[in-house]
Amino acid sequence: MKAVLKKERDVGFVIEDVPMPKIGDDEILVKVEVASICGTDVHIYDWNEWAQNRINPPLIVGHEFAGVVVEKGKEVKRINIGDFVSAETHIYCNHCDMCLMNHREVCRNLKILGVDTNGAFAEYVKIPERVAWVNPKEIPHKYASIQEPLGNAVDTVLSEDISGKTVLITGAGPIGLLAIGVARVFGATKIIVSDLSNYHLEIAKKMGADVVVNPKEANLREIVLNETNGLGVDVALEMSGAKSALSDALKLTKFLGRVSLLGLFDNNVEINLTDDVIFKKLRIYGITGRRIFETWQIVSDLLRSKRLDVSPVITHEFKLEEVEKGIKLMKSHQSGKILLHP
Amino acid sequence: MKAVLKKERDVGFVIEDVPMPKIGDDEILVKVEVASICGTDVHIYDWNEWAQNRINPPLIVGHEFAGVVVEKGKEVKRINIGDFVSAETHIYCNHCDMCLMNHREVCRNLKILGVDTNGAFAEYVKIPERVAWVNPKEIPHKYASIQEPLGNAVDTVLSEDISGKTVLITGAGPIGLLAIGVARVFGATKIIVSDLSNYHLEIAKKMGADVVVNPKEANLREIVLNETNGLGVDVALEMSGAKSALSDALKLTKFLGRVSLLGLFDNNVEINLTDDVIFKKLRIYGITGRRIFETWQIVSDLLRSKRLDVSPVITHEFKLEEVEKGIKLMKSHQSGKILLHP
Amino acid sequence: MKAVLKKERDVGFVIEDVPMPKIGDDEILVKVEVASICGTDVHIYDWNEWAQNRINPPLIVGHEFAGVVVEKGKEVKRINIGDFVSAETHIYCNHCDMCLMNHREVCRNLKILGVDTNGAFAEYVKIPERVAWVNPKEIPHKYASIQEPLGNAVDTVLSEDISGKTVLITGAGPIGLLAIGVARVFGATKIIVSDLSNYHLEIAKKMGADVVVNPKEANLREIVLNETNGLGVDVALEMSGAKSALSDALKLTKFLGRVSLLGLFDNNVEINLTDDVIFKKLRIYGITGRRIFETWQIVSDLLRSKRLDVSPVITHEFKLEEVEKGIKLMKSHQSGKILLHP
Amino acid sequence: MKAVLKKERDVGFVIEDVPMPKIGDDEILVKVEVASICGTDVHIYDWNEWAQNRINPPLIVGHEFAGVVVEKGKEVKRINIGDFVSAETHIYCNHCDMCLMNHREVCRNLKILGVDTNGAFAEYVKIPERVAWVNPKEIPHKYASIQEPLGNAVDTVLSEDISGKTVLITGAGPIGLLAIGVARVFGATKIIVSDLSNYHLEIAKKMGADVVVNPKEANLREIVLNETNGLGVDVALEMSGAKSALSDALKLTKFLGRVSLLGLFDNNVEINLTDDVIFKKLRIYGITGRRIFETWQIVSDLLRSKRLDVSPVITHEFKLEEVEKGIKLMKSHQSGKILLHP
Repeated sequence: MKAVLKKERDVGFVIEDVPMPKIGDDEILVKVEVASICGTDVHIYDWNEWAQNRINPPLIVGHEFAGVVVEKGKEVKRINIGDFVSAETHIYCNHCDMCLMNHREVCRNLKILGVDTNGAFAEYVKIPERVAWVNPKEIPHKYASIQEPLGNAVDTVLSEDISGKTVLITGAGPIGLLAIGVARVFGATKIIVSDLSNYHLEIAKKMGADVVVNPKEANLREIVLNETNGLGVDVALEMSGAKSALSDALKLTKFLGRVSLLGLFDNNVEINLTDDVIFKKLRIYGITGRRIFETWQIVSDLLRSKRLDVSPVITHEFKLEEVEKGIKLMKSHQSGKILLHP
Repeated sequence: MKAVLKKERDVGFVIEDVPMPKIGDDEILVKVEVASICGTDVHIYDWNEWAQNRINPPLIVGHEFAGVVVEKGKEVKRINIGDFVSAETHIYCNHCDMCLMNHREVCRNLKILGVDTNGAFAEYVKIPERVAWVNPKEIPHKYASIQEPLGNAVDTVLSEDISGKTVLITGAGPIGLLAIGVARVFGATKIIVSDLSNYHLEIAKKMGADVVVNPKEANLREIVLNETNGLGVDVALEMSGAKSALSDALKLTKFLGRVSLLGLFDNNVEINLTDDVIFKKLRIYGITGRRIFETWQIVSDLLRSKRLDVSPVITHEFKLEEVEKGIKLMKSHQSGKILLHP
Repeated sequence: MKAVLKKERDVGFVIEDVPMPKIGDDEILVKVEVASICGTDVHIYDWNEWAQNRINPPLIVGHEFAGVVVEKGKEVKRINIGDFVSAETHIYCNHCDMCLMNHREVCRNLKILGVDTNGAFAEYVKIPERVAWVNPKEIPHKYASIQEPLGNAVDTVLSEDISGKTVLITGAGPIGLLAIGVARVFGATKIIVSDLSNYHLEIAKKMGADVVVNPKEANLREIVLNETNGLGVDVALEMSGAKSALSDALKLTKFLGRVSLLGLFDNNVEINLTDDVIFKKLRIYGITGRRIFETWQIVSDLLRSKRLDVSPVITHEFKLEEVEKGIKLMKSHQSGKILLHP
Repeated sequence: MKAVLKKERDVGFVIEDVPMPKIGDDEILVKVEVASICGTDVHIYDWNEWAQNRINPPLIVGHEFAGVVVEKGKEVKRINIGDFVSAETHIYCNHCDMCLMNHREVCRNLKILGVDTNGAFAEYVKIPERVAWVNPKEIPHKYASIQEPLGNAVDTVLSEDISGKTVLITGAGPIGLLAIGVARVFGATKIIVSDLSNYHLEIAKKMGADVVVNPKEANLREIVLNETNGLGVDVALEMSGAKSALSDALKLTKFLGRVSLLGLFDNNVEINLTDDVIFKKLRIYGITGRRIFETWQIVSDLLRSKRLDVSPVITHEFKLEEVEKGIKLMKSHQSGKILLHP
């Protein structure tokens, strides 16, 4: 079958014909209908420091996908051939203390699909039954692959109730853009979005942002205070991993407010804990992965009910072979989420 | 000034000219712009058992209102002449254990405006400063009087996060109708509404109900199960005070679900606690009044931001003198919320 | 091996020699060191209506136990031979919607050990690996079998934080008695306990009750109000399944209080929802089973750390063959928890 | 009357005879029975940078106290002459957005007793009625003044339920020491305490610490991991304001854990947000002041019920005139809480 490979310990991907995966007793084989590119795939392509430490080529990359089950192992019970499925990409062990306590997204023996095991940028992918999620029939198939990052957005937005809150979202990459839509659907009463790419900000408006700000071009602090009677926002969602954005998030959140952190920072950050966190009684949440499977249920319901329209975030669709074109587009900050079709 | 009075211990209201209220040092005088009729006003008009035990005529009735401050006592600090205000109708003492613990809606010495003290169906009404809420300028004045019942709806909907949940609302009187809109804005992914009045159900659809059911005409149980893959809803909001509706709410909520109770029951109710509550691990919340002033902030933000459109619920507007016409209309179940203009 | 059997569809148990269980690939075989008698075992012995509908003889009864793993199936990964284990008795499917959402205690396909499958009143018992809990080494072996009911107590007490609260516990059977200890250890500042058995109340005092009341002999209402400045308790835990106790729990809990329900009621109950729940803004929690495995972790830590001393609750220890003696003792209300040793 | 004054913009205090305070209509006059020294008083004595910016001499210092009401203004309703009271030291305005939303501890117009207004190191002190807390009769009078810092401890410990958790407390000054006791009473199953003063650590043991560590003398990291099966603690309470302690708190808290921050940091701190917070899904709470008056209720109940014994923390008692001796002792780290008697 055709697959996108990290073949060598170097920059780039290779499209190649590889043998079909052979499934184990507790695994299923899925014919991929649609996949989508994540920032992690870009890091692996770029062969950055993290990738050099983590990836063992040759590896089929890619983890966001949806497709139809074509084969199943003999111990598989919940999943049937013909099911249209996506996958939780955090392949948990089910045996460690975190799994036993229902925090499988931080399993001690976590393997990530397309990072630690062969992934989904291919005609077929095999996954353990336990991470398969059967998509409701009513979900638009095209959008089913982005449920995984949409889950990150949902978990970030819902680390506390967002209903009736004013929100600052720093960073409008694909997950930030999805978070705008989620915050809108779940009842944020004002959504302010900051990003350095005006291309992203245009999509942000379509996703429901009330105010968009490019901090290179306007004074974010003034705008936020002006939009909130000088008080700051109730909630900040940090989706960028940029230090200046973190500072904005902490300083522009009001007393007793909430800050959720999803963006990853390359280095240590400096924080004025006393003034920006302690005296303001902030609550800060680190977010990684998504709750398994509570988040999937919410995500599927959002798409099934059409409460959330993700179409503005999907800016490009390519053939699987054009993956490199997609990667480069993402690096230009002139795209939202990019779909791949095998 | 002109006022609607409960003058005698008997059925009915009287419109009469009464002396202007004289304010105390900690009170404000408000020129009423708009008021609205609550079910409580109907009970007082009808002189039902509750009213006979609670009301001491002569009394100016009415508690839902908004208007402009025209006079203030010498100790009043927060409120200014010219402010456009509404009022929390639960006049709390600020001294009892419940007030000290920030549960002022269940103050031990509670007085209700228009029930225990002269109310707002008049040209002017006086209130203590502490219960005044300054409405944001951007709120449509016409809708400002319904913030009080809208607060009940918000507190019922938000007794837990409603985001991404399926919801059954039993009872589509004015507060039930507002609750539909609130649940919609705050991200319920499916809203099913039951009521015995088709007039109410028509408005329910306009407020965002996905499915409306008249239990006299269709099988609610079948419909709910059909709409929820046979599982039941995540959340039930009981807004009717009807025993059969309570039974529906409990039986049609799924395992680990939430039931919030706002409707008042005239008599004891029979419940199968073992099967319907304990084995299902339900969480049940009694709701009364609204959190002071957290709920008011949310309510004002919903109206200011135009996230919530309450116009379908406002079915009639009358002059203050036509209050009896409004009362009779409410009793016919052929109205939503009815506004009164002095 | 020796086992306690429900052999016929009639009252009573039989001690008999039966074949050793044969384990499947995902199962383990445990040599039972200690077991304990639950009210459910009494119902099965008595062959009450519930038992007649649920139990299919012949069946080895009993579900509370601890012992050492002597054999394991080839797919077993987490558990090792020699481990000292107990078992979650709710054998969940891991595939239904409730299991996927981490609410396995209400699995749609639940089987209960010793009720739907052969149980633990025997020399050996087999269980699926997934329900096995490895006991910390420091736990007194003798107490390890009561972790299962202790888990019910923990979940009831902790349906919300109990720290700094006044508490009424209605019903001081074994789980109620354990709940007293749990509430004490977790910081309830006053614990009032009601039960009709003075034998139970004596143990209640040893477990940390501040005040014990036999409602046949004293006025519970007066005592509770007197002990709480006339306000009522913050929290009521209903552990009896008696209607009068439910009424006490609802009426004696103060405004904004919490009521958790574990006791099962044979019939429908009548409740004054308006006065006792809605106007008081109570929160009511139905409790069944225990959270898997969060509760087990807490329970094991309580025993390991010796923060909780359960010894007053363990009133009798018998040989397995003396099970009938234990059953009769429990029915006399002259016992706490009764241990059985194979 | 006799009072401890900050008289000049310089180091030190002066004991002087000053006029009796004159109360306003909404104020009460309290004859001080006992007061206690806080770190803030030490900063004012030392005339550090914060004090130079905040304090306007002449000022009577001191804010932790208890005493008897001897006079009341004509608008005072809740408090009676003869009441034994303490005071919430955060004098809130009751009018700003934070006060209206029941977050009075972060009032926008906050005045602190003994910092912004004349304080309690005197024979008499006047306070507004609204911040007075009537102590239950059963509370040992001697301990009533430390309810204020005990409230900080309670709020830090209870920012989430502590029941059944393992806890690391970094910093065992008076509030840290009280937090140990609170965590113990509220059911922490293991409490590890770190501090650089062995004097403090001795008291820590008496307050219920299971393990005490002086990081200068032992490897805290190894000890914590060893005590927690290599996993880290569930909860860290940072009570020191020291950068190395913050790092310990973040790094030694396990996945999905909670970190509460009460200690104030003089400068910005560097944090590895990605590894220590985001990938671990930590929840971080900034804590300041104490919830008014929920926390006071808990604190009073802890003392009244004798569940918490604070006597080990009270290491010295002096006459008011000996305040300077107390200040110097606190700076030597050879004391717990020091009481002053006028």
